This record gives sequence, C-alpha cells and structure tokens, in this order.
Amino acid sequence: MSIKHMGGQTVRMQAPPTVAAFAAVAGKLEGEGPLGKNFDFISEDSYFGEASWEKAESAMLKQCFSMACDKAAVAPSELEFLFAGDLLNQCTGSTFAMRDSGVPFFGLYGACSTMAESLCLASMVLDGGFADTVCAATCSHFCSSERQFRFPLEYGGQRPPTSQWTVTGAGAVILQAMGNGPFVTHVTAGKIKDLGITDANNMGAAMAPAAYDTLSAHFADTGRAPEYYDAIFTGDLGSLGHQIVLDRFKQDGIDLAGRYFDCGMLIFDADKQDVHAGGSGCGCAASTLCAYILPMMQQGVWKKVLFSATGALMSPTSAQQGESIPGICHAVSIELTLD
Amino acid sequence: MSIKHMGGQTVRMQAPPTVAAFAAVAGKLEGEGPLGKNFDFISEDSYFGEASWEKAESAMLKQCFSMACDKAAVAPSELEFLFAGDLLNQCTGSTFAMRDSGVPFFGLYGACSTMAESLCLASMVLDGGFADTVCAATCSHFCSSERQFRFPLEYGGQRPPTSQWTVTGAGAVILQAMGNGPFVTHVTAGKIKDLGITDANNMGAAMAPAAYDTLSAHFADTGRAPEYYDAIFTGDLGSLGHQIVLDRFKQDGIDLAGRYFDCGMLIFDADKQDVHAGGSGCGCAASTLCAYILPMMQQGVWKKVLFSATGALMSPTSAQQGESIPGICHAVSIELTLD
Repeated sequence: MSIKHMGGQTVRMQAPPTVAAFAAVAGKLEGEGPLGKNFDFISEDSYFGEASWEKAESAMLKQCFSMACDKAAVAPSELEFLFAGDLLNQCTGSTFAMRDSGVPFFGLYGACSTMAESLCLASMVLDGGFADTVCAATCSHFCSSERQFRFPLEYGGQRPPTSQWTVTGAGAVILQAMGNGPFVTHVTAGKIKDLGITDANNMGAAMAPAAYDTLSAHFADTGRAPEYYDAIFTGDLGSLGHQIVLDRFKQDGIDLAGRYFDCGMLIFDADKQDVHAGGSGCGCAASTLCAYILPMMQQGVWKKVLFSATGALMSPTSAQQGESIPGICHAVSIELTLD
Repeated sequence: MSIKHMGGQTVRMQAPPTVAAFAAVAGKLEGEGPLGKNFDFISEDSYFGEASWEKAESAMLKQCFSMACDKAAVAPSELEFLFAGDLLNQCTGSTFAMRDSGVPFFGLYGACSTMAESLCLASMVLDGGFADTVCAATCSHFCSSERQFRFPLEYGGQRPPTSQWTVTGAGAVILQAMGNGPFVTHVTAGKIKDLGITDANNMGAAMAPAAYDTLSAHFADTGRAPEYYDAIFTGDLGSLGHQIVLDRFKQDGIDLAGRYFDCGMLIFDADKQDVHAGGSGCGCAASTLCAYILPMMQQGVWKKVLFSATGALMSPTSAQQGESIPGICHAVSIELTLD
C-alpha cells in the first residue's frame, strides 16, 4: 500500500496544501438568496455582458478565476496547473473561459461533482511535489443547462416538485503547497453508483446513493466519526437527496442531523424562491464553498469541514436511450489547523 | 519552485511509474488497417453487440479495460483510481463503461488529448505516493462521434479532403508505482491554444498549434533536443496537421522528419482506406499507443518515446455560435529504462 493511501478510497496529504484564496460569482437569483451578500460579484441579468448564455457562463468563470487570482496576489502566469470543468457539452464553459489564461490546463468532467473532483486532483498534485500554486474551478448556468439537458426555456415546461434549479454561479480556489491554512488534509475519491433511477427530474434521488457511499467510505477509511467534523456538506442533492442521505445513515445508526447540510438548500431560500427541491449544478457547490463555507472557516466558526459534491453522469442521449442515471461523489477534508 | 517542477509546463517523476500492461480494442475498419493484427480485439461491426452506437462505445471501453486488467493480472478491485474520459456529451462513453467497475473514478475531458491527459494525471498520482496501481483509459467511436459533432450518418454528407475519420477504438493502460518499465518519466501539461481556425472539418490545423506549443515547451523545459527521442508522436493531427507541426519546427531550425509520427496516419492506410487526412478521436492515440507504440518499446525497437495527444476543445454549440476552435496538447515521456 502506498504511503499516503489509507485503504478504501481515501488518501491522506503528507504536507496538506493550503487554500490561499477563493472567489464566487453568481447570477441575479442567487444574489437575491441567503448567500447574496457574500458573492464577490453578482450579475444584473443572465448574460454577464455576453450575447449567449454559453458565452455568459464562460465570462462568469473567467471573472471568478481572475478575482481568485487577485485575492491570492498571484498572476495567472504563476499558476502551474488549472483543474476545471463544467456541465456543457464538451465542457466549453470552462475551456472557453480559460483559453486565454495561458495556464497548463487539465479538463475534468465530473458533472456537479467537479468542484470536489478538482480539489482532489489539485491537492494530490500539490502534495505530490509537482507544483506550488494551482487553481481548481468550475461553473454552471441555469439557462445554458436547461437548453442543454432539458427543454428550451421558451417552451415553458412545468417542473415537478423533485426538480432542482441549476445555479448560475462559479467558484475558483487557489491552492498552494505552503501556507497557513485552511488545509486540504484528505481526499476521498468516489465510485460510480447507479441504483436505477431514470427520472431526470429527480437528480437528488439519483445522486444520493453516491453521496452516502463516499461519505461512508471516508468515515471508514479515516476512522473518523461524523462528529469529528463541525459541518459536512454535499454539493447539490437538494432537500429530497439530503433527506435520503440522512435516512441512509440513520439506518446505520448514525445521526447526521444538525451537522450535515446541502449546498443546494443553502444557496436558495426555499420558502421565497421558486426552486422546488433546491439548487443544483457545478456552480452550486462551487459558489457555496467560496461564498459561505470557506469564509465561515476563516472566521473560525467551523474548524473541520467535510466538503463533498455529487454528479449525475447522464446525458440527454443516455436518457433517451432508456439508461438509468449513474452518480458519483468526491469528498475533501478541509481543516483550519493541523493537529 | 516545487522539487519536481522543471519550470515551464513540465514535471519530472522522482520514482517514475511503470506501464504494467495495456490493451487496445478497435472496430472493423481499424482492424483492416496497418495495425490490425496488433489489436487485442476487433469487432465485426460497429455495434460490439449493443443496440446503439453510444452503448457500443461503452461496451468497447469496458472490454478494453477488462483486457488490460487481465494482462496486468490485476483485479479491478485492486486499482486505486481510474482516469478516463471520451468525446461524447457528458462523457457517457467512459462513465457508462466504468459504472459497474467499482473503481474510484476521475472523469476527464480533454477531447482527443485524453489518453495523454489521463497518463499525465495517473503518473503524478502514482509518483506522488497516493496509489500503487491505477488505470488510464479512453475511447471514441466513429458513428457516435459523427452523430454528436457533425451530421447523422444517414444524411451522407460529403467530407472535404482536410476532414479526418474518428477512430472506433479504445486503449487502456495499467500503471504501477513500482515495476520494470517502460517508465513514464516526464509530464508536460498543455496550455489552450486558439489561433482562430473555425473550420470543423479541419481539426488538424486547429490542433497543430497546441502540439507545436507543448512539444516546444517539453524540449525547452527538459533541455532535451528532439534527437533524445527515438520517436515522437502526436495523437490525431492527420497528414495536414502533421505537416504543419513539421513546418513550424523547421522555422525554428529543427528537423523532425523521420522521427515524428502521427497516430492518425499510422492507424489507417491512406492509399487504401478512404479516411482523407487520417484518423482522429480519443481512441486514435489510445489504441495506437496500446497496439503499436508500447509493443514496439517492449520489443526494444524504441527506447525513448515522447507521446503527445491533442484535443479540439469545441462543441457543436460553440461552432454554431461562431467561436473558433481552441486546441490543447498534453505529452508524456515514456522510457524503457532509467539512466
């Protein structure tokens, strides 16, 4: 067994990388939600000054990346690697955002798990001694996602109560090999889980088994009980998926209530905003991490956080061919100090 | 500067990982080409026993992965991580192939650069001390790609001479932290390059600047002249892109002729097979690596190889919106022995 592998799906950083800076950019609806005052920039509309929603998504991520670099006082040319992806076909949201950056680029596809996946890989590359400063980033856009995955917005389709609202938002984290924390201490990589859900309007139920699997693996591999963490997050299961995860752990005799939150429930106010089961999309976990979770850690409210994000690995084509929806979940431990 | 970073875009492995085993699976047309006798399996048609081309693509990669594991005498449950991606929307080619594997999965999107990208990340994770055994894999399928990126096959569109033929093929490489080689010694990560090409039937020209950029960076970062390598490969530039790379280096006073090959020109016989400028797709570089390049290294014909693969980071949507085609190229040094 390699020295940093803890068995199962988890690796431990030997010299945990530091979160040096982060930024979150969001759309108008997200700006009107509970995290509104925390975003670094909020667009007045869905276009971010661009002519199409796809171009808007790229412009949003580009701005977010630039703001994160600024906060870290790091020029893009000082970054050794950039890890990014998004939901659009062929990941053009992130590649077009970064095509002028000049940073060596590793494109990822983890669907809505991308913020956690990018942090996993970025942390291993830093701890492995391959870089000093890297960026992990992702984004999603409500309008480009609807056009991509469901129906044209103009069609005005009804949304069932289990459906979620793709967050228009981006998050970018600058990670460094050396620094004063918060530190990424552990990475738990997810396995693909498919329990046969075929309802593309019920992503929470499709992705919850992956979240349960990865979180369980993390606890087993590290020997940590959930109580070790001040707060545990999933990326965008929404209220339904969140309840499924709570229930699954309760069957194991583990009560996560009061300690486990879902970014899709934090970013919108379900009583006032018409988002049904909550937020979704790569940008949901990413912007909540950068606008809420990491700031709360910096304020010392939470000292130990388990951040996970789930992705639904389906496409419109796979759905049309009658396939069920595989899910995946990656997780990282983020800790304010090292023991 | 981190200890393994050589400046620029290149990192050096401290304990270079070993290529433990590999497998290549291909379609009928590829089986009739120059590498035909080398593939581990050739399908009799485009369907690999499945009901759709997308399902066929997944079945092909699944079979290839299984064969590579067998050759390495490794059970999938012994793999710590799997790095894979493909060209299909939301990368369902690879995720559906791997959904029952039970291996922690990092999904990538590097378009046709995926074989090199997956080797880059897999090598860093192994050398970083995070795993003992991992897999890097990718695939592409002519019919699913045409449906995805261009026109339905039934439409029977004319193909201009610059167009390429997406390879129906898959490649999978099992890498281990310890072993007797061939070794991955260096990784050069690519920057996104966009010189404004908008012709989706001329991918070679769109991707050649990225290949030139990454290969140049590799030579500059390592201090190695091209002559250090017995053979240098790009993944799927085809005859046009290959010529552009030769010409660009010639302008720098560097003659790569006789040493530089493109997988898209090796996998098909241009005189006998109607593939225009040559092969393309993730599976082109992947299956050529696993059916030809690595076997030639094992036979001792080549001792030092620079393997690179380029990707065109566009989508049908970006093309429709008038965007040009960004390209990227990742490269790995593979050496039979360590000095």
